Amino acid sequence: MSYLDLVNSPEDLKKMNMDEMKVLADEIRQAILNRDSQIGGHVGPNLGIVETTIALHYVFDTPRDKIVWDVSHQCYPHKILTGRKEGFLTAEGMAKISGYTNQDESEHDFFKVGHTSTSVSLACGLAKARDLLKQKHNVIAVIGDGSLSGGEAMEGFNNAAVLNSNIIIIVNDNEMSIAENHGGLYKNLRLLRETKGQAECNMFKALGFEYLYVDDGNNLADMIEVLKKVKDIKVPLVLHVHTLKGKGYELAEKNKEQWHWNFPFDIKTGKTAFEMPEENYNNITYDYLEKKIAKDKSIVVVNAATPGVFGLSPERRAKLGENFVDVGIAEEHGVAFTSALAKGGCKPIFMVMSSFVQRTYDQLSQDLALNENPAVVLVGWGGISGADMTHLCTFDIPLISNIPNLVYLAPVSVEEYSAMLDWAVEQKKYSVVIRMPNRMLHEKNFVEDDYSEINKYKIMQKGEKTAIIAAGSFYGLALEVADKMPDKPTIINPRYLTGVDEKCLENLEKDHSLVITLEDGEIDGGFGEKIARFYGPKNMKVLNFGAKKEFSDRVNVNKLYERYHLTPELIVADIEKMLK
Amino acid sequence: MSYLDLVNSPEDLKKMNMDEMKVLADEIRQAILNRDSQIGGHVGPNLGIVETTIALHYVFDTPRDKIVWDVSHQCYPHKILTGRKEGFLTAEGMAKISGYTNQDESEHDFFKVGHTSTSVSLACGLAKARDLLKQKHNVIAVIGDGSLSGGEAMEGFNNAAVLNSNIIIIVNDNEMSIAENHGGLYKNLRLLRETKGQAECNMFKALGFEYLYVDDGNNLADMIEVLKKVKDIKVPLVLHVHTLKGKGYELAEKNKEQWHWNFPFDIKTGKTAFEMPEENYNNITYDYLEKKIAKDKSIVVVNAATPGVFGLSPERRAKLGENFVDVGIAEEHGVAFTSALAKGGCKPIFMVMSSFVQRTYDQLSQDLALNENPAVVLVGWGGISGADMTHLCTFDIPLISNIPNLVYLAPVSVEEYSAMLDWAVEQKKYSVVIRMPNRMLHEKNFVEDDYSEINKYKIMQKGEKTAIIAAGSFYGLALEVADKMPDKPTIINPRYLTGVDEKCLENLEKDHSLVITLEDGEIDGGFGEKIARFYGPKNMKVLNFGAKKEFSDRVNVNKLYERYHLTPELIVADIEKMLK
Repeated sequence: MSYLDLVNSPEDLKKMNMDEMKVLADEIRQAILNRDSQIGGHVGPNLGIVETTIALHYVFDTPRDKIVWDVSHQCYPHKILTGRKEGFLTAEGMAKISGYTNQDESEHDFFKVGHTSTSVSLACGLAKARDLLKQKHNVIAVIGDGSLSGGEAMEGFNNAAVLNSNIIIIVNDNEMSIAENHGGLYKNLRLLRETKGQAECNMFKALGFEYLYVDDGNNLADMIEVLKKVKDIKVPLVLHVHTLKGKGYELAEKNKEQWHWNFPFDIKTGKTAFEMPEENYNNITYDYLEKKIAKDKSIVVVNAATPGVFGLSPERRAKLGENFVDVGIAEEHGVAFTSALAKGGCKPIFMVMSSFVQRTYDQLSQDLALNENPAVVLVGWGGISGADMTHLCTFDIPLISNIPNLVYLAPVSVEEYSAMLDWAVEQKKYSVVIRMPNRMLHEKNFVEDDYSEINKYKIMQKGEKTAIIAAGSFYGLALEVADKMPDKPTIINPRYLTGVDEKCLENLEKDHSLVITLEDGEIDGGFGEKIARFYGPKNMKVLNFGAKKEFSDRVNVNKLYERYHLTPELIVADIEKMLK
Repeated sequence: MSYLDLVNSPEDLKKMNMDEMKVLADEIRQAILNRDSQIGGHVGPNLGIVETTIALHYVFDTPRDKIVWDVSHQCYPHKILTGRKEGFLTAEGMAKISGYTNQDESEHDFFKVGHTSTSVSLACGLAKARDLLKQKHNVIAVIGDGSLSGGEAMEGFNNAAVLNSNIIIIVNDNEMSIAENHGGLYKNLRLLRETKGQAECNMFKALGFEYLYVDDGNNLADMIEVLKKVKDIKVPLVLHVHTLKGKGYELAEKNKEQWHWNFPFDIKTGKTAFEMPEENYNNITYDYLEKKIAKDKSIVVVNAATPGVFGLSPERRAKLGENFVDVGIAEEHGVAFTSALAKGGCKPIFMVMSSFVQRTYDQLSQDLALNENPAVVLVGWGGISGADMTHLCTFDIPLISNIPNLVYLAPVSVEEYSAMLDWAVEQKKYSVVIRMPNRMLHEKNFVEDDYSEINKYKIMQKGEKTAIIAAGSFYGLALEVADKMPDKPTIINPRYLTGVDEKCLENLEKDHSLVITLEDGEIDGGFGEKIARFYGPKNMKVLNFGAKKEFSDRVNVNKLYERYHLTPELIVADIEKMLK
């Protein structure tokens, strides 16, 4: 019999005494580790926030009081205390309960959140609605120090400060972003920690917030005391809470970056079952960059707080030295900075995950493309996946390929990727985005090294009747489809996602009656529709394949391929159906 | 003979003495007013920055030293001093020289800029490039107080602070955004002004910057003195300069908001020749909101620092009271805040210009659409125009219509707009975006009031052979095209830009062989391509019309219509050519 057994809602927690809650905290940590070790997930942020979360639910009354968890990286204890502990105890529960806040799961959640730096803005909206509707309750945002550097967070703070009403912003300062923090504001956080919140020079006070500091946010009694004090406060308040990331799990306390998020692991040893194969696009990219930088100090690698996503370990970052810049959680700055590095004579490469490149549309358009600076953006992990609905990587093609001036390349193989990357880095004419492939494929006798003939498609196999235009990682799928077709089809690697090779497409009209497009992303607004538009006034038939416009949520990728008709069998069946 | 005659480059300025430069300042002001009064443009910001600009070019050596002007609202004096005074004196010059910085115009400009809050990030890139390439020069960003609230600016400051090298950020504090400022940071600017920069609580120092304050930035001698002092500084510095917006033109000094930007005007009286017709979509929207709010206090109008764009004058804003929120230059926050207002039980309407909605892709996707909160976003000024390349409004359809869950409506008439707006505000199921039309058109006997049958197109006229699907403001164009066609075409108002009415399109197959789509925006990734994709496997021919994927720059709208084949004659000609 554990205390966790007794807690089915925050009400149950309120009946416990301090000693019981301390035991409960240990049990919550075990539950977190249980889930993470079995299915992977955020480790350090959740372990560090246990006491703060218990104190919040002990003092406040959710869902009447409303807590908004930034980015959801620290929402597990909250989930455990709000009726969702099954998600941390049983396999079925883990499959059901996601790793992110979700109002469809519980009335104690208010938003589906997986991108950073949004909590303060969202809390502002809840607070303003409360005031207009003459309601009385507390609105609380919990935001990590790492998320503070995101522009949306700063916009939120600026507005929260003038709400003239109750809003409590808990800055959970664990001295880390996903990796280490970057930027001037972290100097101020350090000064505030060192002075126990007493320093006059205080960025939060400068904005007009009331401010309180808690030196040990893992001390439950302290947290309860301070939260009781600030409950029902009538003005905007920042509660700066110093916590230990990874608290209670030695490995995570020691190696904070590795244990921010982890694959399933053995709790005793910390060893993960998952290993990236030695040959992968991250290693290929890093090896290229390291060699290149050794010879050319004008090359700069830029990343926004997700180096691990690209295999840029602390060792590798150290090796790149001043030629690597982590700008913190600041994707917008990342793009503008990269564009200006190119204008200043450098050869910059901004590495960003497909899901997060969404934060930079206007910067890609205005700061980069409009200025035609020869910078390179590498978009990682683009494609259909079983990801959480907040981390889908299927929207980058519609997002990027319709911005004027940008050249968006989709290599199909290791050799083509390497050639495109080197061309993009060395050329001086275009702003180039490259979609890193997600499938290993080698091309023997590969020869190209020049991509300056924009929108020139490459015919990989000449056939008849049907042509398959397969972008990027779906080239392999085209080969599989071809195998199942009665007549040998033409297979085309378009290479460029940003335009149409009119001559190539016109040539197809001579001896083809059907063109199929395959792309590993949303069809709407994507590459294939450009082909459909081109052939709109012609006799050529066109079938576009890709992801449906939807936020899928942790659906197995093979199920998604079936749903979207992206298996060789279903594609061939669609062709046959059409030809009937 | 004037001093302006003598200045053809910053070198000429350096030969002048203080008295001469003061006269030059007056002449520059006259030149600014000359341009603005004749072709319209930014008035107040340019008049306020004259002395700072003279001092900058007197002390620094551009283009070796590099100045990045935020948003370009204050770049006229810089243009005048860097060989482009013709742009302020002659009609031909005005047509040639744009109102924004542009490296294609002059080596003294480094970026094409028209969206705010980007200068610090861009300057960071130039500074980092300088350091990597072992060059020595000053990098200077000039940013207005209004632009500070934009997330990208704050991301830039956070990174600039840790550059460990020369970067000079001039905060041009004229106590105004386009309208008044909003947010906590402006309390700190006020405190700093009131204490002549001496207050301990200083947001810039908190980030780690060196900091200096100039109380009268319109005092040339003071500005020259301080710039000489900071030239070649080795660390990141914020130079906080207090200036008077509109300086030297009484009307602009008095009514700062009206004179931020103005249409052509009479210099003596300040009267503008341009008048909006009484019936316009801004007035229709405001009248609706005012009436609605009188009865329903849960309605909130949100805007990000551009109330004038929507006819929300200071009087109107005052009338809306607490039901109007200007979040400052903070479009990302605007969307998240709006989404949360809806979650909190309010009926929020976020009004944003098409060009600036680009800054919110991820917020529209993650903060709004993923959460399916019943908020309303009104996109204003969408469509092809003769705007500067930095202010095009042609990209919102590809941007918005491919985000899952969002319902993007394109009304064709006053009556339909009013009905859609009221439906969107009152319904509780969808996140709705409405593209405000840009042409006045009335529909007699208009009856609809329910748009909950998503993607249901409306047949406006039943014809045969050819169907024209005309979205939003281009419905009028469809009528004109129909007039010129030998057979009466079917005309369809799709109403929804976010999807396809499959049943409607299938019905067309019975007695039509050609479908034409018209949309007032970029074709690539837009509405028409969805129709082309739908008919891809069928016998129906499709012709898509819309704007080419390009950054056009101050091209007369009628020329663009010709370029894009968007006149009735050219459309009919394209149809005839295709049918041959």
